[in-house]
Amino acid sequence: MLLPWTDIELPEGLAAAWYGGGALPADDLSGVEFYVLPYDSGTEPAKLIGRLPSLRVVQSLSAGVETLLPLVPEGVRLANGRGLHDLSVAEHTLALIHASQRDLPRWIAQQATGTWEREHTRSLADSRVLLIGYGSIGHAIERQLVAAEAVVTRVASRARADEDVRGISELPALLPSADIVVLVLPDTPATRGLIGAPELAALPDGALVVNVGRGTAIDTGALLAETSAGRLRAALDVVDPEPLPADHPLWKVPGVILTPHIAGGSASFYPRAKQLVTDQLHRFATGAPLLNLVN
Amino acid sequence: MLLPWTDIELPEGLAAAWYGGGALPADDLSGVEFYVLPYDSGTEPAKLIGRLPSLRVVQSLSAGVETLLPLVPEGVRLANGRGLHDLSVAEHTLALIHASQRDLPRWIAQQATGTWEREHTRSLADSRVLLIGYGSIGHAIERQLVAAEAVVTRVASRARADEDVRGISELPALLPSADIVVLVLPDTPATRGLIGAPELAALPDGALVVNVGRGTAIDTGALLAETSAGRLRAALDVVDPEPLPADHPLWKVPGVILTPHIAGGSASFYPRAKQLVTDQLHRFATGAPLLNLVN
Ligand SMILES: NC(=O)c1ccc[n+]([C@@H]2O[C@H](COP(=O)([O-])OP(=O)(O)OC[C@H]3O[C@@H](n4cnc5c(N)ncnc54)[C@H](OP(=O)(O)O)[C@@H]3O)[C@@H](O)[C@H]2O)c1
Ligand SMILES: NC(=O)c1ccc[n+]([C@@H]2O[C@H](COP(=O)([O-])OP(=O)(O)OC[C@H]3O[C@@H](n4cnc5c(N)ncnc54)[C@H](OP(=O)(O)O)[C@@H]3O)[C@@H](O)[C@H]2O)c1
Repeated sequence: MLLPWTDIELPEGLAAAWYGGGALPADDLSGVEFYVLPYDSGTEPAKLIGRLPSLRVVQSLSAGVETLLPLVPEGVRLANGRGLHDLSVAEHTLALIHASQRDLPRWIAQQATGTWEREHTRSLADSRVLLIGYGSIGHAIERQLVAAEAVVTRVASRARADEDVRGISELPALLPSADIVVLVLPDTPATRGLIGAPELAALPDGALVVNVGRGTAIDTGALLAETSAGRLRAALDVVDPEPLPADHPLWKVPGVILTPHIAGGSASFYPRAKQLVTDQLHRFATGAPLLNLVN
Repeated sequence: MLLPWTDIELPEGLAAAWYGGGALPADDLSGVEFYVLPYDSGTEPAKLIGRLPSLRVVQSLSAGVETLLPLVPEGVRLANGRGLHDLSVAEHTLALIHASQRDLPRWIAQQATGTWEREHTRSLADSRVLLIGYGSIGHAIERQLVAAEAVVTRVASRARADEDVRGISELPALLPSADIVVLVLPDTPATRGLIGAPELAALPDGALVVNVGRGTAIDTGALLAETSAGRLRAALDVVDPEPLPADHPLWKVPGVILTPHIAGGSASFYPRAKQLVTDQLHRFATGAPLLNLVN
């Protein structure tokens, strides 16, 4: 086993070395059969995959493993971290929406100058939210939106009438009545540029565009134009390109809040990730089927 | 009728003048029987109460009417705005908590310099929240905390075992295991200074103190000491004194977020307030009992 944490309870008979994404461990790794990649630790950990001759399982702690799959040798199983970030991403989504609706950047600026100046703000309650992407994370976001008494319309790749989910083909009809659009989509050929100039133009004045999936879903130039004009607002954890260059004009647009792709990385991830790894090791040791396999 | 909005549907036979808290209306007000005070419009509207000779009902749109009650003449009924702000205050509470847990001031500062620098943050999920004040607003806050998978302990003035509510006398035993304390209490002799130096000292390192009730519940000097030392964090919509003077040191303490008593004032208040006023006018016209009477 090669694990990113030392506090995992190992099944009897298994031994482990530790690798958190920094310096490679001094241990002999030729016997490693199960490799849990350290989370959010750059590109080095993936390179190790091809250098472990006894490898049978790679466990990623990310939901999206598009870039990892080609590095996994024939015959080695790859499992992803689907679900581990749901709560973390959902609460960051709510943080972004609340900050935008309740004008937090204004109050933080007033705080810097000791200014007590009051004004009423927008609400999340009663807002019509178009939730585009109704998968694992989308469900978690919806629960928190509903508790805040927002009115949610669910959108996925295809309509599912039994779940009251609309298909993405209905998008042009749905945009004009959205106060808030939340995007939580994977990066695929079908999602790239999904929200371009015509889609943004279909939104009502003052609408808020939120993206916590992948930056490629939005045409950055088109969003820059609509937000710079003051017609739309945005709150983005993911952008295209990433990292956003220091001199990119989007950083400074009033009404735009940007965070550096950190929605998935918060404290609530760790206990869930450790529980998954513990479960998977026990399954591996007893020959039970592994969870979250993607190949 | 003297009303703050022109778009209220009046019961048949009733006539209205409008007063939104600015200049007094030119109308003869001697026949006004029902006065709806404009919301959040300073101290002038209350002075009018004593100058309306036919007055029978004063409808406030605030939850707390402590300062209004002495101004209401013998024989005139006073109704409050209990419940109208619940959602607005609850979502601002969540905004403050999320902003603190997910480091929004840091990302907003990075945005100003075009800095893409990532770090993991705290979560709200799994956090142990001590919710002190489990009334109308406390219930609304709890629903949103639970949806975010926080672990809530309810506290009110007395224990209610059937509702799993703890009494305030248990506070010393509860503070050491709170990651987040949320205060949503009225200003009464019993709540003044409830959270002083010993209570703050009982909280674990790094705990977050949130106040959306009344500023007097916390000893400001004691909170300033603990937050300036970096031992505790705070997110406050209400403070003591209000307005906080421009040169007060609390404005600039890292780890403290301050908003100027604006939790109750957001868009979701208006439709609820207008619905209450419409209901009350119909009750008044038909002789049915009024809602929310406090005298
Ligand atoms: N910001 C961060 O830190 C962070 C962290 C973790 C994940 N993410 C991103 O979030 C994405 C979603 O994660 P998840 O766990 O919720 O994935 P998931 O469970 O696979 O759900 C994806 C959702 O997107 C929908 N979808 C896919 N293609 C679509 C299209 N062309 N048009 C409309 N809807 C489409 C799917 O529709 P169907 O239901 O019809 O299949 C599904 O509802 C991940 O792929 C990842 O890129 C970001
Ligand atoms: N920031 C803002 O913009 C804003 C807006 C609106 C309201 N507020 C404030 O929020 C307060 C609460 O509003 P609400 O509508 O939720 O009031 P509420 O329904 O009357 O509830 C008050 C709660 O406080 C508890 N309480 C009272 N005295 C206490 C004490 N000494 N120790 C412990 N708990 C005590 C009560 O306990 P029991 O359940 O045992 O009675 C009750 O649970 C208002 O009074 C107002 O000051 C602030």
